[in-house]
Amino acid sequence: MTENLQGYAGSLLDTLRDRGPMVHHLTNMVVMNFTANVTLALGAQPVMAPCIDEVKEMVAMAGALLLNIGTLDPPLVEAMVEAGKEAKRLGIPVVLDPVGAGATKLRTEAALTILEEVRPAVIRGNAGEILTLAGEGGLVRGVDSMEELGEREEALRAFAEKSHTVLAVTGKVDFLTDGTVDIRVRNGHPVMARVTGTGCASTTAVACFLAASPDMPLEGAASALAAFGLAGEKAAASSRGPGTFVPALLDALASLDGMTLKREARIEVSR
Amino acid sequence: MTENLQGYAGSLLDTLRDRGPMVHHLTNMVVMNFTANVTLALGAQPVMAPCIDEVKEMVAMAGALLLNIGTLDPPLVEAMVEAGKEAKRLGIPVVLDPVGAGATKLRTEAALTILEEVRPAVIRGNAGEILTLAGEGGLVRGVDSMEELGEREEALRAFAEKSHTVLAVTGKVDFLTDGTVDIRVRNGHPVMARVTGTGCASTTAVACFLAASPDMPLEGAASALAAFGLAGEKAAASSRGPGTFVPALLDALASLDGMTLKREARIEVSR
Amino acid sequence: MTENLQGYAGSLLDTLRDRGPMVHHLTNMVVMNFTANVTLALGAQPVMAPCIDEVKEMVAMAGALLLNIGTLDPPLVEAMVEAGKEAKRLGIPVVLDPVGAGATKLRTEAALTILEEVRPAVIRGNAGEILTLAGEGGLVRGVDSMEELGEREEALRAFAEKSHTVLAVTGKVDFLTDGTVDIRVRNGHPVMARVTGTGCASTTAVACFLAASPDMPLEGAASALAAFGLAGEKAAASSRGPGTFVPALLDALASLDGMTLKREARIEVSR
Repeated sequence: MTENLQGYAGSLLDTLRDRGPMVHHLTNMVVMNFTANVTLALGAQPVMAPCIDEVKEMVAMAGALLLNIGTLDPPLVEAMVEAGKEAKRLGIPVVLDPVGAGATKLRTEAALTILEEVRPAVIRGNAGEILTLAGEGGLVRGVDSMEELGEREEALRAFAEKSHTVLAVTGKVDFLTDGTVDIRVRNGHPVMARVTGTGCASTTAVACFLAASPDMPLEGAASALAAFGLAGEKAAASSRGPGTFVPALLDALASLDGMTLKREARIEVSR
Repeated sequence: MTENLQGYAGSLLDTLRDRGPMVHHLTNMVVMNFTANVTLALGAQPVMAPCIDEVKEMVAMAGALLLNIGTLDPPLVEAMVEAGKEAKRLGIPVVLDPVGAGATKLRTEAALTILEEVRPAVIRGNAGEILTLAGEGGLVRGVDSMEELGEREEALRAFAEKSHTVLAVTGKVDFLTDGTVDIRVRNGHPVMARVTGTGCASTTAVACFLAASPDMPLEGAASALAAFGLAGEKAAASSRGPGTFVPALLDALASLDGMTLKREARIEVSR
Repeated sequence: MTENLQGYAGSLLDTLRDRGPMVHHLTNMVVMNFTANVTLALGAQPVMAPCIDEVKEMVAMAGALLLNIGTLDPPLVEAMVEAGKEAKRLGIPVVLDPVGAGATKLRTEAALTILEEVRPAVIRGNAGEILTLAGEGGLVRGVDSMEELGEREEALRAFAEKSHTVLAVTGKVDFLTDGTVDIRVRNGHPVMARVTGTGCASTTAVACFLAASPDMPLEGAASALAAFGLAGEKAAASSRGPGTFVPALLDALASLDGMTLKREARIEVSR
């Protein structure tokens, strides 16, 4: 199945580029420009429209909806819930990035509210953030913390199953689970941790791929993380530091094709 | 007159750099950084000050005012109207970028309100957005849609004349009209459609040029689009994809001089 | 003492990278992405969390707090005061960037309110902004204006002493004073004035360095400005204009080490 998954990833990227779906973002102010460019580089069309007065209309045109709480306030969370419910009603996949869950009460509660009210197809975060949502605490320092999952994997599986959500925990190795099947993705490069918004941008990649594969969120999310990580590897090789890495990453994403992704993705179904 | 216009564009760029006017932006969160850098690269000074409590004071120091509804909400639209009215009272040219008009009721109404209350000197948008304002519908998908104008040019001329506004419709070929004279600008490069905010940044170029040429908005807007498109051509030649295109575009804008613009601008007065 | 200060700067950079403190920003929308990347390039961890409902919790985890009023509105200023007071209570250094003070009443009053209520350890701004706060007027055009200080230095010393705050006035030569000791920093490059947010980013550098040196704000701020200016020199040498300068600056910041900073910093204690 691993080989199949890499082939699936490659085909999915081609499908994504063919269809060019619109991906509606309600996201944080730090990464709006960067993630809009990631969306375009992957062949999709970004829309960033956070006002509650228009989110329902806008999401109806989207292939996927991304909710990211990085610079949240209560009106934005309200707009996210409204957009998310409408997306679910229309069968449009929703991806949640619970930035900083565990760091403050506001963030933890916002993420749990969205989880409860919207039931996203995929949650993409780091270990601390997702373990917080799973009720496993987990210290969150800054918003980029990582930790070895180890025995906590079982807690994640249980949480994924109970909440009917695919979890995509990124780190040195990305760990994805829907409660039944686990996938590990080994693409990526350490410099990505030294650039702001690479986590958020990987969530954008997940949303783009889900727009092309709404019925297979686990496989779609794994494909997205492999593509994003692989572009990171290529960008690291052609840049001189975290500054030149960013434009190189967008170039690498834009020039990635399905054949290369099939060949160089490192996706393992581990259970 | 075409040759004259290219000469005019070149002189205007030199004037702009000499004077270094301040250009006040009320714009969207996605492009604030990029368009501030475009403003500086063109030799003007960007200010991004959206709070209604200060817009009147700030606009009084500006050479031009740009209003962009890309991430609007009602308080921002209110601030835009206040800033716009003050600019008009002071004889400062106003440029409107109706991002996403036609996509949602909120956007269409905000753009029409600004049009009605402020009467901008120039509206810069894509075909769908501007035809929406002209009452010609026009499907807007995402915010980057383009379409062949064809017979709709007549509707645009009528709308420009009725609203006493220069329309600058960007696309493969840019089409500008004040209702009496049409101008086409053929500078630009396809990669620009794969970078977020290039449309918004072309509006910034228009505002900068208008600050140096407040009494000739049609010629000023055409000059700006030629300069922006020409810098795009040069940047495409010296970059490897949409990521490295962005810094290359800013470099190309910063190094563009009046002589080069005069020689390489492709501006045609077509009627 | 000058040689000592350069050595101090070098050691401080190494300490900063060792500790990797979190730096909490309440800052403007134009520079959020850029300054987050500057923070990471210096080895610290950026958090941008402006909502009043969480600022107290967030700042408690921070090594320093940065307040920048570039795109202010009244709720944001209220959140800044709340965050600032909590930081002071916890002994966390606060750095204020009074962007545009003097340009509008809203900005001048916001900066004075923060000064009064929070008593920041350092204020980093241009001459016009800081002289405005000192009650010396000073014309502010755009937000990047510079002017020769000349006889106004005495007014700055008096203001620093009275307000128990280190002033860091950046310009061609950076001038710092705590009222008793003056420091001049001569690192930097003219291209920095042609890129948006370099002033704001120098404030970020100050906040990062203060997180590693909370008890010596004057020396910490001077070290930060030397490091930032030196990275600017190196980036100017390896880029082709203001566009490619930005990624080059982040690369230069990321690769700067204490030894190089000690050797190439140009810091003079002048009184």
